Amino acid sequence: MSRASSGPKLNSHHEIEKLSHSKLKFELEASDGCARAGNFVLHGQKIETPIFMPVGTNATVKAITVDELKKIGYRLILGNTYHLHLRPGDQVIQRLGGLHDFMNWNRGILTDSGGFQVFSLGKLNKISEEGVFFRSHLDGSKMVLTPESVIAIQENLGSDIMMVLDECLPIPVDKKTAAESIARTTRWAVRSYQARTSGNNLFGIVQGADFEDLRKESAQMLMETDFDGFAIGGLSVGENKEIMYGLVSLIAPELPDQKPRYLMGVGDPVDMINCIESGIDMFDCVLPTRNARNGCLFTFKGKISIKQSQYTEDRLPLDEDCDCEVCRNYSRAYLRHLYKSDEILSSRLNSYHNLWFFKQMLAEARNAIMAGEFREFKRRFLNDYLGG
Amino acid sequence: MSRASSGPKLNSHHEIEKLSHSKLKFELEASDGCARAGNFVLHGQKIETPIFMPVGTNATVKAITVDELKKIGYRLILGNTYHLHLRPGDQVIQRLGGLHDFMNWNRGILTDSGGFQVFSLGKLNKISEEGVFFRSHLDGSKMVLTPESVIAIQENLGSDIMMVLDECLPIPVDKKTAAESIARTTRWAVRSYQARTSGNNLFGIVQGADFEDLRKESAQMLMETDFDGFAIGGLSVGENKEIMYGLVSLIAPELPDQKPRYLMGVGDPVDMINCIESGIDMFDCVLPTRNARNGCLFTFKGKISIKQSQYTEDRLPLDEDCDCEVCRNYSRAYLRHLYKSDEILSSRLNSYHNLWFFKQMLAEARNAIMAGEFREFKRRFLNDYLGG
Repeated sequence: MSRASSGPKLNSHHEIEKLSHSKLKFELEASDGCARAGNFVLHGQKIETPIFMPVGTNATVKAITVDELKKIGYRLILGNTYHLHLRPGDQVIQRLGGLHDFMNWNRGILTDSGGFQVFSLGKLNKISEEGVFFRSHLDGSKMVLTPESVIAIQENLGSDIMMVLDECLPIPVDKKTAAESIARTTRWAVRSYQARTSGNNLFGIVQGADFEDLRKESAQMLMETDFDGFAIGGLSVGENKEIMYGLVSLIAPELPDQKPRYLMGVGDPVDMINCIESGIDMFDCVLPTRNARNGCLFTFKGKISIKQSQYTEDRLPLDEDCDCEVCRNYSRAYLRHLYKSDEILSSRLNSYHNLWFFKQMLAEARNAIMAGEFREFKRRFLNDYLGG
Repeated sequence: MSRASSGPKLNSHHEIEKLSHSKLKFELEASDGCARAGNFVLHGQKIETPIFMPVGTNATVKAITVDELKKIGYRLILGNTYHLHLRPGDQVIQRLGGLHDFMNWNRGILTDSGGFQVFSLGKLNKISEEGVFFRSHLDGSKMVLTPESVIAIQENLGSDIMMVLDECLPIPVDKKTAAESIARTTRWAVRSYQARTSGNNLFGIVQGADFEDLRKESAQMLMETDFDGFAIGGLSVGENKEIMYGLVSLIAPELPDQKPRYLMGVGDPVDMINCIESGIDMFDCVLPTRNARNGCLFTFKGKISIKQSQYTEDRLPLDEDCDCEVCRNYSRAYLRHLYKSDEILSSRLNSYHNLWFFKQMLAEARNAIMAGEFREFKRRFLNDYLGG
């Protein structure tokens, strides 16, 4: 183990680590209706909003290197606390210098609290005032997450933005259950806030299922604590899109102007455009990378299923208007062949292109807000994307 | 389809294509015992031997981009005629501008004849004087490969070095069968030679199972035709290593000095060192990429199975003496985590490192030959690699 502690060739980000421990300051650069363009500095990087965060579940954005993320222009990614706590373990990562060093990513990392994965992946055993009791989806072992332990885990990971433990309610759910839940989620949020031993940023999470009054109440209760940003959770769980858009447009403007607003787990392009319009600044979703592996590619003219036989001899790039390396170097015919042949390069190239599209799309949305032309951008984007 | 023929952003290699249609001229730069250092120009690239060729079965070296191959320094890769003939089809690739354009690789491509895959992958139905009749491993459809058709296929692909159709014998096999087979393989080789309509290079293939006299006879018969190089096939099919080394040391020196000698399907580092010593110039094997996907990593100090728990918190690079991007940027602990998490990035990084190692190893072998120090290099390499 004495050899193991030297690691002479591996980069160390200790200088930058210190930077990340200062509170993020959200600067609002422009508004256009409720839509906002802003920025904050994190891990020595200026983060411009609205922003999409690629998901790096197991300390890697699937099929993509950190160099590629940088080349595309990403400065903030999401890591999954639940997965990393289970494997390789947050204490292992802490001893290896934290998640940034572990995965060789010297830019921003936001980690979720793991709560959502307990509900979606783990075998949930019990929710009590103390926390959530569940079994690991990997080996079935008994686990518990508490408001305090999720902070300790995220501090072990060295996350730049941590999330509080919350209960993610299904939609629909009865109102009494939902009311009790948001009260507990608020108490958990305060406990998470108090459990911090670091200067890492911490966001609260608004819940309340599809009840407008409970959502407002949840937001009001959370805002009594000085979180560094506020998220809206528990949406995009299968509910009607109009319900989601309605709740986001209701809640986002209630949240503090001077802090970032993060809509968790949302990343469909149409959803993002609608929610940017309501004042959301941050998004995350597995959509670009998961769809890529399934042969679904995003373009400004809509989605393409690359497996279709019409592309067998198609020499055109995936998107003639796209400047990414995939579109500059490969044909649709080649991308189809790789997909049909189940080649790893298919997942690589498709993921790269989709992540490029998401970055480009959010950059254009931001530019439109800065120029005061978001409504026109939205109209044009939806017209092209939905094949109008 | 009129749009499909424009492909304005895709590179065209027509200029280089023309270059590749000139006969390769093998220049012998140095000899050290039977070991040789040489070069030839292919597709506008100077190919230095001894050389290892990564295998790009389905028009991609698995998990690796062409840019990465170039970064590592590869100038010649192998494509599998059998696979490409079946999917997407050599005529499709021909209409798309050939294999170089299809996969965006503007360096050398050697293609095998597909014969080996018929024996190993397809359901072989019949071998006759005409050719091999088999069923596709993809959909079971009836197929036939003849000496003439494998040339047509490889010309459709635009291969820089084509291989003749040969019968790959099992070891052991009875001598009468083997003798009949090498006679037919020779007739097939002549037919392949005569079937050419292009100036693409064509190699003959020595067969003869483990019979020394038949191997010599096969070589003598083939050398009556003016092939551009000679391969030794049908080895590394499960026979004792000493048999392989013995046959290679017997046959390689029989082959023309002024033409490249290619040992097909061999790529184990120890095998390559031994066969370079006997005068082999070219190798190919799936070993570096297949082993990479199984977590087996090559270093000058031997193979590492990255899944082992001893690497869980190992901060060291995979190989402290390796300058590849993987070793410069990631720890063994991270590589183990990626492998255990079944992440695509694991296959990517492991493949990149292994291909780097193979390139580096062959470059060092070449340098040793140029310096007249191959025996010392071999002794040192084997001592380190086998953990002496």
